[in-house]
Formats: sequence, C-alpha cells, structure tokens
Amino acid sequence: MVGDHGAGATGAEQQLRDLGIQLTASPTPFGSYVEAVQMGRLLFLTGMLPVVDHKPMYLGRLGAEIDTKTGRDAARTAGLSALAAVRQHLGSLNRVRRVIRHSVFIATYGDFLDLPAVADGASDLFRDVFGAENLAVRTVIGVASLPLGVPVEVEVTLEVDE
Amino acid sequence: MVGDHGAGATGAEQQLRDLGIQLTASPTPFGSYVEAVQMGRLLFLTGMLPVVDHKPMYLGRLGAEIDTKTGRDAARTAGLSALAAVRQHLGSLNRVRRVIRHSVFIATYGDFLDLPAVADGASDLFRDVFGAENLAVRTVIGVASLPLGVPVEVEVTLEVDE
Amino acid sequence: MVGDHGAGATGAEQQLRDLGIQLTASPTPFGSYVEAVQMGRLLFLTGMLPVVDHKPMYLGRLGAEIDTKTGRDAARTAGLSALAAVRQHLGSLNRVRRVIRHSVFIATYGDFLDLPAVADGASDLFRDVFGAENLAVRTVIGVASLPLGVPVEVEVTLEVDE
Repeated sequence: MVGDHGAGATGAEQQLRDLGIQLTASPTPFGSYVEAVQMGRLLFLTGMLPVVDHKPMYLGRLGAEIDTKTGRDAARTAGLSALAAVRQHLGSLNRVRRVIRHSVFIATYGDFLDLPAVADGASDLFRDVFGAENLAVRTVIGVASLPLGVPVEVEVTLEVDE
Repeated sequence: MVGDHGAGATGAEQQLRDLGIQLTASPTPFGSYVEAVQMGRLLFLTGMLPVVDHKPMYLGRLGAEIDTKTGRDAARTAGLSALAAVRQHLGSLNRVRRVIRHSVFIATYGDFLDLPAVADGASDLFRDVFGAENLAVRTVIGVASLPLGVPVEVEVTLEVDE
Repeated sequence: MVGDHGAGATGAEQQLRDLGIQLTASPTPFGSYVEAVQMGRLLFLTGMLPVVDHKPMYLGRLGAEIDTKTGRDAARTAGLSALAAVRQHLGSLNRVRRVIRHSVFIATYGDFLDLPAVADGASDLFRDVFGAENLAVRTVIGVASLPLGVPVEVEVTLEVDE
C-alpha cells in the first residue's frame, strides 16, 4: 500500500515531489560491482559518491579545499545518488520501509572535527524523505582519501518491502 | 529464558555485575539519527564514541597524543556506550544472543601500527560480557579523524531475541 | 544442489580449480574475535588482510611504497583470505549464493586517487569465482593506516545456503 510507511500518509515519492527534488539517473559502477543487492527485506547499496554522469560534483577535503557547508551539500548529493539507486532497483521509493544504517565517510585534512555537521547533509535528506519517525543509525568517520578525490562517500543499508 | 545464552549460565546482565560494570546512560544523538535500529533478529547500532553526557572522555590520536593503553581504554569506553544503547533498546542485555560484527575505527598519526591492541579494548569487553563462545567478527582500520576529535569509534551489529 | 548458483553450471569450487587458485589455510585471529559468524543466510567475515601464516605479504601505502598494480595484488590476496575463511566455515564455496557487500579499505598517502583500480583486485576475484551475474555492492575508502602496516583490508558479507 502506497504511503503506509516512509513519510507517513504521503509516501516517499510524494515527499520527494513536495521537497522539489528530481533525482538524476542512477549511478553506474566504476568496476566489477553493482549499485544494489537485495536479500529478503535487506537492501544493500554501494558506497555512493557525489557524482553525476560519472563525474565528481565536488573535489577536495574538509579542513582544506572544502568548507563545512559545501561538505554538507556533497553529503546530500551522495545521498541523492543513493535514492536514485534505490528507485532504480525497487521501481519506487514507496517500497522503502526505512534506512537502517548509513555510514558517512568524510575526507579530512588536519584538525577538522565538525564531521557530524557534514554528515547531516545525508541524514537530514533521509529524514525529510522517509520521515522523522524512521531515523537510521549512523557511523561517521574521517578518512584519508576517497575515490576520484571527492570529499564524501555515503554507504546505506535499507529495509524494504519484499 | 534468561541465561540460556550470552555468557552461559549466568546471562549478560549478571556477567556485567560480576565484572563490576555499571553502565552510564545511553548516548544521545548529535544529529538526525538514532542510536539503535532493529530488524527482526538484527540490531544495528550507531557508531559509538567514548563519550559520556555528550562530552568526549578522550581526545587525540594514536601515535600522537594517545598511547596504546589509553587507546584501549577509549575503545572499551565506546564499547560500554554500545552496551548502554543495547540495554536502552532491548530492556536487558540478556536478550542479546551475540555481537555479530564490530568495527573499530582508530584515529592514527604517522606510523602507529598496533591497531589490534587498541581494538581489543572493545573486543575483550564483548567477550567478557557475552562469553568466549560467542565471539564476533571484527574490522579494524586507522582513520584520519573522528567526530569531536576522539581517538576511537566502535560500530556494532548484534543478533538478538525477537 | 552443487552448481545451481555461484559461477553458473560449474560451482565456485570448480571455478576456483579452473582459475588455478589454491587457497592457503584460513586466517587465524589476532585477538578476541573469530573469522566468520553466520546468522541464517547471512555470513559475516572479519576484515581480511593480505596475510599468510600470520605474516603480512605486503607492507606500505598507496601513493608511497606501493604502486597501483601491487595494491591490486594485495587486494586480491586479502580476497583469497576471505575465500579461505568462507570455505573453513561452510566446508565448500559451493554453498555461497553470492557476495552481498565488500568494503575495500586502502592505506593511502598524499594525493593517491585511483582507489577503484586497487579495489578491483578483490572485486574481480569475487566475480571470477562466483560469476558475473552475482556481483556485490562495494564501498572503497582510503584510510590512514591498517593493522600491521598492510596496504589493503577487505570486509565481506555473503549470502549462503542455510
């Protein structure tokens, strides 16, 4: 039934429209892997980068070339790639029950410590789309580097309708 | 049935008392996420920091401000936060069947390589509480930085009674 | 039934023989953890290092002591350790339905960005053994350091026959 979970009465797809979000095409792999694997009600996604059409939208590290606000935008963009991959796999975001876990990997330099504010770019997106009653667990770590030189990568595991 | 798994005949809660451990309050989120999400018998936890009352108990990196023994204490403290979050979610640690996976993220500087000794702070805690017959798999990596500047973060996934 | 999944008609064990691969002994723990934990159809593995007989086969970081080709070999070696641990746990790789997720952690220095090419060492191995129709999702990150000073660590979660 559409709208019986996710963002409450409206469903995640309607919620996306209300937020004015248009998802880009689902990301495509850079190697011998796929973007999504489902086992029963568990949907596992590849670590998503802030990439559109295979090109990085952001380059650099937090604490160097990228400030907190831009990092947050990059995390949101990676989160949008995750949503595009989910829709590609399931046909509709309305089949998502919740994000279970999201890990936000942030390329940092020197003493940059405000990692949670960057990660919020992804977390807030998932809250807005799937509802504040369906928050996920989160892991945030600062890493030495990320593929292509992007500042943020977001790994997501979801619970979905079978 | 209390005590039919976990730390054998006594149960994890009794084991905790025998170890003289008093858990602090469950950690609270720094953003749009929750500390625990359950799907069936799987319990996923947020990446736990050595934080009490939202304040970091340890600051710095291994190989710089923090030595191995202190790092191990920090890993144990993060592990205790995980146990507090589990009890908060389940009501009792006796409902835990086992830790399935724990990932220990360690902020390192320069040539610090003794990561396993630091991670043991969390691994040994889980062994002592849930029993040596219920050991988990482990991932240990050295990272560039962690939220708030803490030296260790511990991510845990558990199998629990439904 | 042997060969009804994995690498199509032949089964993963036959595929391994066809590739001329002989697995070494399953890795053994450096602490209070185990190499594999199964819950139903999910098999979780410890983060695997390019280690044989408890000795690292590769030392150094990408962007410094280790070049891309060597890094890819190290990722493949860690992947082989994962296969050895799976066979040790299940008795036969033919009981694997697929790799669900693999995370490749790569120790990097400076501006090394070609992380996907290194990770392919593990991804291509899993494709060759379990079949191109069974690709996994992947997460690739560059980290500050890894246990023992190895350049690559590979974390794997699989779907297996119960």
